[in-house]
Amino acid sequence: MFFLIGLGLGDAKDVTVKGLEIIKKCSRVYLEAYTSVLTVGKEALEEFYGRELIIADRDCVEQDADSILSEAANEDVALLVVGDPFGATTHTDLVLRAKQKAIPYQIVHNASIMNAVGCCGLQLYCFGETVSIPYWTDTWQPDSFYHKIKSNRIRGLHTLCLLDIKVKEPTLESMTKKKKEYMPPRFMSVNEASQQLITIIENERKHLKPEFMQKSPLAYTENTLCVGLARVGSPLQKIFVATLKEMSETDLGAPLHSLIICGEIQPLEEEYLEQFLSGSCSSSSFKDHAGTSACLF
Amino acid sequence: MFFLIGLGLGDAKDVTVKGLEIIKKCSRVYLEAYTSVLTVGKEALEEFYGRELIIADRDCVEQDADSILSEAANEDVALLVVGDPFGATTHTDLVLRAKQKAIPYQIVHNASIMNAVGCCGLQLYCFGETVSIPYWTDTWQPDSFYHKIKSNRIRGLHTLCLLDIKVKEPTLESMTKKKKEYMPPRFMSVNEASQQLITIIENERKHLKPEFMQKSPLAYTENTLCVGLARVGSPLQKIFVATLKEMSETDLGAPLHSLIICGEIQPLEEEYLEQFLSGSCSSSSFKDHAGTSACLF
Repeated sequence: MFFLIGLGLGDAKDVTVKGLEIIKKCSRVYLEAYTSVLTVGKEALEEFYGRELIIADRDCVEQDADSILSEAANEDVALLVVGDPFGATTHTDLVLRAKQKAIPYQIVHNASIMNAVGCCGLQLYCFGETVSIPYWTDTWQPDSFYHKIKSNRIRGLHTLCLLDIKVKEPTLESMTKKKKEYMPPRFMSVNEASQQLITIIENERKHLKPEFMQKSPLAYTENTLCVGLARVGSPLQKIFVATLKEMSETDLGAPLHSLIICGEIQPLEEEYLEQFLSGSCSSSSFKDHAGTSACLF
Repeated sequence: MFFLIGLGLGDAKDVTVKGLEIIKKCSRVYLEAYTSVLTVGKEALEEFYGRELIIADRDCVEQDADSILSEAANEDVALLVVGDPFGATTHTDLVLRAKQKAIPYQIVHNASIMNAVGCCGLQLYCFGETVSIPYWTDTWQPDSFYHKIKSNRIRGLHTLCLLDIKVKEPTLESMTKKKKEYMPPRFMSVNEASQQLITIIENERKHLKPEFMQKSPLAYTENTLCVGLARVGSPLQKIFVATLKEMSETDLGAPLHSLIICGEIQPLEEEYLEQFLSGSCSSSSFKDHAGTSACLF
């Protein structure tokens, strides 16, 4: 049987009782290590589970998936993933392949950032479409998420931005070589994401004619209220409420980070967010975000 | 200390290891029993935890919150909630009150329907705003969610519909009496929700002029593809893919149910959904839901 087990977001003890029982009885247990990370490493998990784990990087999960699944045809094999198993497309694909091969499977759900983000006090039903912000390179600077944020903001909805992770990415130089060399892992921080978001509106301002700007204002400005979240669900969790500009100058420490671009703020949300306000950001900052969408931009 | 612990969605073993350790050491443990339910009852939980639970109904959580929190000022008190603690506004409010009273608190996250819904194969980042569908009465038939579904569908996004739950609702006759009498609990099924959704478009058709309909088509029709989900995360989980009309005639059994109104369907999503297709609904049903939003209506 093939088990896909969500580990939640914080540390070793965020696994469910059901998940732990399965981990203990499986003959092989893989730990997926490239779509997300916990605040503890493989060793801490091995110690807590009392068993060995096999690191499964992108190549292993995406290219050698068939060999993992063939093992599961004869014995109990588990793949552990941070958050919930259906948070990443690659895991959905894996379950589909198991189904096609008639290998029985079981999913064990857990918290993911998609629901745990509620810890900042913004209500989950006030979020629009979630976006992903990728690392830009000199030659590749996609910004399709900008228009999604805009659609959300026009409707008064918050936008959860999932920030890029680069784990075991081959260096450009080694791409054509037999023996790949890897870059050190990178996890996008809220300040890096905020800087990219500011660059996008700076470019918009350069390229849009003033009369067009009035008809179709920017999706957000440097003064738009944002929520930065780091290490959600762990004892080291940090939440910071500030303008986008301030967020671009803020260091929330170790990964993982997520960023929310606020839409309209409801009274209960405002009251809750106030505890996380940055020093320079007074509660009057909420004023622009309350009420009608006319105040949004 | 005050602990707010998510129980996940399925049965007793979906609690996290962290959550279970806290439950065992608290002096009082409340079980919130009106915003959602597990597939097992209080007794099964008590047996698994090896301790007594106190049922906390709406009156208890919303009106006697202060007394629960005062207890937490002197001893360890936990409130258990189905899903994730931040799924319902009332829990956010409770944490805020704890903060205001300077009572230390800890949150233990878990899966909620907001992320576990990925089990049907629709990708979480392709969902728009989540809506709630309330039970209609003879005199109260709100349909504000209709416009939210429409905004999502115009953008090609799926809509997760959370379905109403009525637990320990006083009967109309007893509202003014000292001793309240309660209606039997009700959990909206996917067929009930689908019937209400169909009634809304039937009304729209009656009231809109044909020329207006062409400019602004309906948010969905009886032929729109939907996904019905029942008891997500439990061994009795059931997923059913059908048109809205078929869904209105389908019985998915015991609660809880959720309904998704599909937007545009991506290839991987289509491949995954096919396993849950109703007999009369062929894979050509996806055709209307793929590609450009022009095909959406």
